[in-house]
Amino acid sequence: MKIESFFSESIKAALKNDPPGEWMPSLPDDCIRLSSGYPAPHLVPVLQLEEAVVSLLKEEQDLPLHYLGSPKMAKLTEQIKERSVERGMRLSEGELLITSGACQAIDLIARILIDDQTLVAIESPTYMEALEVFQNYTEHFISIPVDEYGLQTEQLEKVLGERKRKGLSLPRFLYTIPTFQNPTGTTMTKERRKHVLELASKYNFLILEDDAYGELYFDEHSMPLKAMDKESRVLYVGSLSKVVAPGMRIGWVAAAPEFINAIAWFKKDLDHPFAQATMASYLDRIDLKDRLNMLRDTYQEKCNVLLSALKQYLPKSVSWYVPNGGYFVWVKIAGVDTSQLLDHALKEGVSYVPGKYFFLDQQEGTEYLRLSFSFADESEIVEGIQKLGKVIERN
Amino acid sequence: MKIESFFSESIKAALKNDPPGEWMPSLPDDCIRLSSGYPAPHLVPVLQLEEAVVSLLKEEQDLPLHYLGSPKMAKLTEQIKERSVERGMRLSEGELLITSGACQAIDLIARILIDDQTLVAIESPTYMEALEVFQNYTEHFISIPVDEYGLQTEQLEKVLGERKRKGLSLPRFLYTIPTFQNPTGTTMTKERRKHVLELASKYNFLILEDDAYGELYFDEHSMPLKAMDKESRVLYVGSLSKVVAPGMRIGWVAAAPEFINAIAWFKKDLDHPFAQATMASYLDRIDLKDRLNMLRDTYQEKCNVLLSALKQYLPKSVSWYVPNGGYFVWVKIAGVDTSQLLDHALKEGVSYVPGKYFFLDQQEGTEYLRLSFSFADESEIVEGIQKLGKVIERN
Repeated sequence: MKIESFFSESIKAALKNDPPGEWMPSLPDDCIRLSSGYPAPHLVPVLQLEEAVVSLLKEEQDLPLHYLGSPKMAKLTEQIKERSVERGMRLSEGELLITSGACQAIDLIARILIDDQTLVAIESPTYMEALEVFQNYTEHFISIPVDEYGLQTEQLEKVLGERKRKGLSLPRFLYTIPTFQNPTGTTMTKERRKHVLELASKYNFLILEDDAYGELYFDEHSMPLKAMDKESRVLYVGSLSKVVAPGMRIGWVAAAPEFINAIAWFKKDLDHPFAQATMASYLDRIDLKDRLNMLRDTYQEKCNVLLSALKQYLPKSVSWYVPNGGYFVWVKIAGVDTSQLLDHALKEGVSYVPGKYFFLDQQEGTEYLRLSFSFADESEIVEGIQKLGKVIERN
Repeated sequence: MKIESFFSESIKAALKNDPPGEWMPSLPDDCIRLSSGYPAPHLVPVLQLEEAVVSLLKEEQDLPLHYLGSPKMAKLTEQIKERSVERGMRLSEGELLITSGACQAIDLIARILIDDQTLVAIESPTYMEALEVFQNYTEHFISIPVDEYGLQTEQLEKVLGERKRKGLSLPRFLYTIPTFQNPTGTTMTKERRKHVLELASKYNFLILEDDAYGELYFDEHSMPLKAMDKESRVLYVGSLSKVVAPGMRIGWVAAAPEFINAIAWFKKDLDHPFAQATMASYLDRIDLKDRLNMLRDTYQEKCNVLLSALKQYLPKSVSWYVPNGGYFVWVKIAGVDTSQLLDHALKEGVSYVPGKYFFLDQQEGTEYLRLSFSFADESEIVEGIQKLGKVIERN
């Protein structure tokens, strides 16, 4: 019996790609992880989440352990709507769906929007796991460069105009992380935000806005595209992974009810009553604004430590973008293949993510790398960058 | 902007069906729920799950709240493998994938096996949520009747033989719940199990075995098809929803590594570290065999109460199958449309699921209904059947 002979066309096509997530060697145990896009261990509210569980089960007994029925699940929807107002978005009935993290949200959106001939516009570089998801559905992409002011919308306009003149297909949607982009850490300016919405209207495409980091600003709040969207063209993806805990798997989609209805149709892991009710109970018991302020201060301080260390310990030929929030710093080492350099870095005891993994055409990313200041503590960050400096000088 | 114009072909096709799950009117608050396929509230181990969380977070701190990293997640895999041995299945490396409940497992399997022209064989009647999932991918089904000895494999053989002679397509897989079937409560005999595996080999199809209820036997353990499968034709779906708590969303697929690899590719809700680690911690702290024995005794007693009440309070024209485990009793009321009867039953204060929802051709199910003895307590069961008896006599 040949197992593959039973496979659907969609999995056959998807299996042609590299296995998802197989983009980093395994890290030595004592390695300083400047690769990990995780919250710092001490910033995960272990005790409060434990208290939330105890309080929830005392209050609701078995309800959150059944398929449905916990009043806290509706509460979570309300809490997320309240947070959305803080981000400039007023969501109506039927415009919100809770998902198992942002990644499931992106997959479900891909599933309702992408056919095998669909063209998708992405940022270059971009979040590789989203790219991997899209590649399960199509092989047709256009890649638009990102600079220190975010997505180069002038480039996008040029490409769209050319394709239209030539009678080529236009993208069905653009995937963008406008605020504290993964991996570059950069933020799209207000002018470019307006421009990209104008282009969406003119060239009739949708925007998938990934806002996983948007609340982790150091100084200035950036208005999501969704908050500026007058035509329901934006499908917004949010997450509590970066501000509470990724292991709870709480994300969401905010979009027009027609999109939400279609997305919900394919969501077959059902709801996660225990995780959702625990999160609602947790949010009920804390002051989220206080927590966000604490996180902003802490991550800004960690970012500053990283930036100072970069200046002090890295050769002058190395450059980077200065982020205004989020988790990441995007570094360019001219003339160096950062993939090859990683072996040496790991031997020295520091990890990063080689830039090539964030590009559709991996050749474009060989001189770049992504550093995360979220996970390691401040002394590890300094030590990690010292090690990286040594490795660069030696190679 | 016309939102539907952006939809993929797959969601356009799926949206032609009725909305998923929209098959029951909302129940009055004080209704006796003989419709709910939920565990009884007092059988959900609230306190032990709470203790499991407290113990887990004390032991592992933030680890189960990150994307990965809790040693308990690997432990859960081992625990499920141990349970599988009890059910007669020895699973090797790469043959097990944990999912968010059985429903996600079924959806992922559908996604790797079904194209829009694929033929799927189902039992008649069958678990309606699985049928809804399959209908998101194809509209081509053959329906094989179930009797008190489970799937009528002679009928299946006849249909397969005819299709082969006529040059028609053969099914890619058969979806079956061989043990304590939902909704009929019946169990496939050993002879039929052997027969269906022979047919799978002869006509080259796969078997999707749903074993959500298999451990809840009253007297006799039934060997899963997967345990008798020598050709890797069976994809087995298990769940902890019925024996621990549905709200934890822990299910799994056991199948040949090639299937598991393909399924994992499309699983984009990632893992659920907190739920999985909590479940592992819980299973570590209890004696599951003791718990299963307690559940078997309790559900058998509840089933007996239901069967006695049926005999005592229902007219002689009503008949049913006597189950040997699981959650359900399948009832036939000759000459009565159970869908219409439901309105009266709800007014009287008792609910059931009308039979039609379990059939591809709903006309076949009008005289049937599914009663669940899992959720309501014994006095409610008696009272509910008394009410049902009244409603039948009056209408």
